[in-house]
Amino acid sequence: MPPPFHPLAPPLQVSEWFNTPSPITLEALRGKVIVLEAFQMLCPGCVSHGLPQAMRVLETFAKDQVAVIGLHTVFEHHEAMTPLALQAFLHEYRIPFPVGVDQPNPEDRIPRTMRAYAMRGTPTLILIDRVGRLRHQHFGQVTDLVLGAQIAGLLGEADPDTN
Amino acid sequence: MPPPFHPLAPPLQVSEWFNTPSPITLEALRGKVIVLEAFQMLCPGCVSHGLPQAMRVLETFAKDQVAVIGLHTVFEHHEAMTPLALQAFLHEYRIPFPVGVDQPNPEDRIPRTMRAYAMRGTPTLILIDRVGRLRHQHFGQVTDLVLGAQIAGLLGEADPDTN
Amino acid sequence: MPPPFHPLAPPLQVSEWFNTPSPITLEALRGKVIVLEAFQMLCPGCVSHGLPQAMRVLETFAKDQVAVIGLHTVFEHHEAMTPLALQAFLHEYRIPFPVGVDQPNPEDRIPRTMRAYAMRGTPTLILIDRVGRLRHQHFGQVTDLVLGAQIAGLLGEADPDTN
Amino acid sequence: MPPPFHPLAPPLQVSEWFNTPSPITLEALRGKVIVLEAFQMLCPGCVSHGLPQAMRVLETFAKDQVAVIGLHTVFEHHEAMTPLALQAFLHEYRIPFPVGVDQPNPEDRIPRTMRAYAMRGTPTLILIDRVGRLRHQHFGQVTDLVLGAQIAGLLGEADPDTN
Repeated sequence: MPPPFHPLAPPLQVSEWFNTPSPITLEALRGKVIVLEAFQMLCPGCVSHGLPQAMRVLETFAKDQVAVIGLHTVFEHHEAMTPLALQAFLHEYRIPFPVGVDQPNPEDRIPRTMRAYAMRGTPTLILIDRVGRLRHQHFGQVTDLVLGAQIAGLLGEADPDTN
Repeated sequence: MPPPFHPLAPPLQVSEWFNTPSPITLEALRGKVIVLEAFQMLCPGCVSHGLPQAMRVLETFAKDQVAVIGLHTVFEHHEAMTPLALQAFLHEYRIPFPVGVDQPNPEDRIPRTMRAYAMRGTPTLILIDRVGRLRHQHFGQVTDLVLGAQIAGLLGEADPDTN
Repeated sequence: MPPPFHPLAPPLQVSEWFNTPSPITLEALRGKVIVLEAFQMLCPGCVSHGLPQAMRVLETFAKDQVAVIGLHTVFEHHEAMTPLALQAFLHEYRIPFPVGVDQPNPEDRIPRTMRAYAMRGTPTLILIDRVGRLRHQHFGQVTDLVLGAQIAGLLGEADPDTN
Repeated sequence: MPPPFHPLAPPLQVSEWFNTPSPITLEALRGKVIVLEAFQMLCPGCVSHGLPQAMRVLETFAKDQVAVIGLHTVFEHHEAMTPLALQAFLHEYRIPFPVGVDQPNPEDRIPRTMRAYAMRGTPTLILIDRVGRLRHQHFGQVTDLVLGAQIAGLLGEADPDTN
């Protein structure tokens, strides 16, 4: 186990979920590495790079080891990127993994989870380890080689249940 | 001049224009070859292929010879692909050419121009010659080699003003 | 017919042909537009861009209208890019069109046809019209849109046999 | 440490090295993860996929942790893919890492190292762990996500010097 200087990842604050029968919490995913893809449906880099990469992660790693979750962090064009529009987007782009709508804050242009993680924009890819700690946060593009290595690095850490 | 069996292209029926100070008509573009890119903002093939190709056409041919126009032909997810959402999309994807919103028909899921051209879906790329006749209509993907050849073929036809 | 200020293309000076039962001359191809792809088998830009583009041209245009020919213009690493090595290359890369070996000149690092056309390097794509005139010469990359338009432009010129 | 059922990787049998001042042995690289890219210079999949991937590995991982080595395993067109031709290829394609020529066997079409590893063709990517054991062998294409994960998996195994 690495030294315990990594903080716990802030909880997801989500107003609505798609592609999942029930809401998802980070706690419920303890034991898995979590790949959290924060995106906006009208962000070109998310559509061309971030979401396809998240789909490749989903196809590559065992689902009982790695959980892939999308987070729709709308911080601009709020009126265009509504949950209704997101639902159509997820359908057309065949996004298969759970996607949460980051909870809007009436007093802040930035939604609540995005603020809590201090994300700088979209796409942002976040890796959370098996005990719930925030380990990597990439704004923009991260290569598949680096991402594969980071996921494997977290998978290789001792299972919390066996310590 | 080819034999006159090509019908005139149906007029554009547009409820709202973006990226142009005033509405555009096919008549006003007589003398130019018109490349009409019919798309939906949430159609993956339009975003990855059709619109980038239309931008390449815009950059490749002289603007006084070839006019590039987008047409937002919404036939599904109407509530998600509103003019307000389209405006945000055009901004984020840096679409520089004029884009018209195909006029919705309250009695038809298919908007009016799409119906008049009997388009089968999106993306559809349409080529109109310098005298306003519908000459090519491609549903799905057409390669740049074929498209370049077809545009040049239409450009090479005798100028109507000189006949 | 355009004004006659385009010179005739210099003849091909070829020491050996592949993928053709008999030697090819420009004269024998009169009536067709000729796409001449000058390349070296160890030139990365030829392998990644020039030759695949030549193959797309071959697949796109009618063979009785457009002739695609390769020319192996070795001006460096002569000892590595021998005709024997070229033959293996053409086999491995599945090049289907005729390829000539530009005739070496013992007194010049540059082979004879490359010198006659004053080519600046590889890849160089050359377009010759239906009456044998050199019309376009592109060093480096030319886009498919431009190339398709130029081929169609030459195809659209009046057939010499019918004037 | 994983259970010791992985055999030691067979030694490299190399007749000539490029891009290195002195011959390389697997023993001398103990402590590092070794990425061995077996290729042929006229193999299209090696040129378009295998070698670019090896270059990405070189750029991504620390050089004191991961060693990237090329192996030119000529099993066809021997007369075209000579060491002299390979040298020109490495220059033109800007391959920066050490490349060995797999030792030809006069009595076998397959060179000696390729035979010892029972490689099925090219490209073949081989991963050797920090104690010299053969751990992964991929014939054809392996994705960057999988490769990154496998390299990280081997990097994460306990350092032999500290056991």
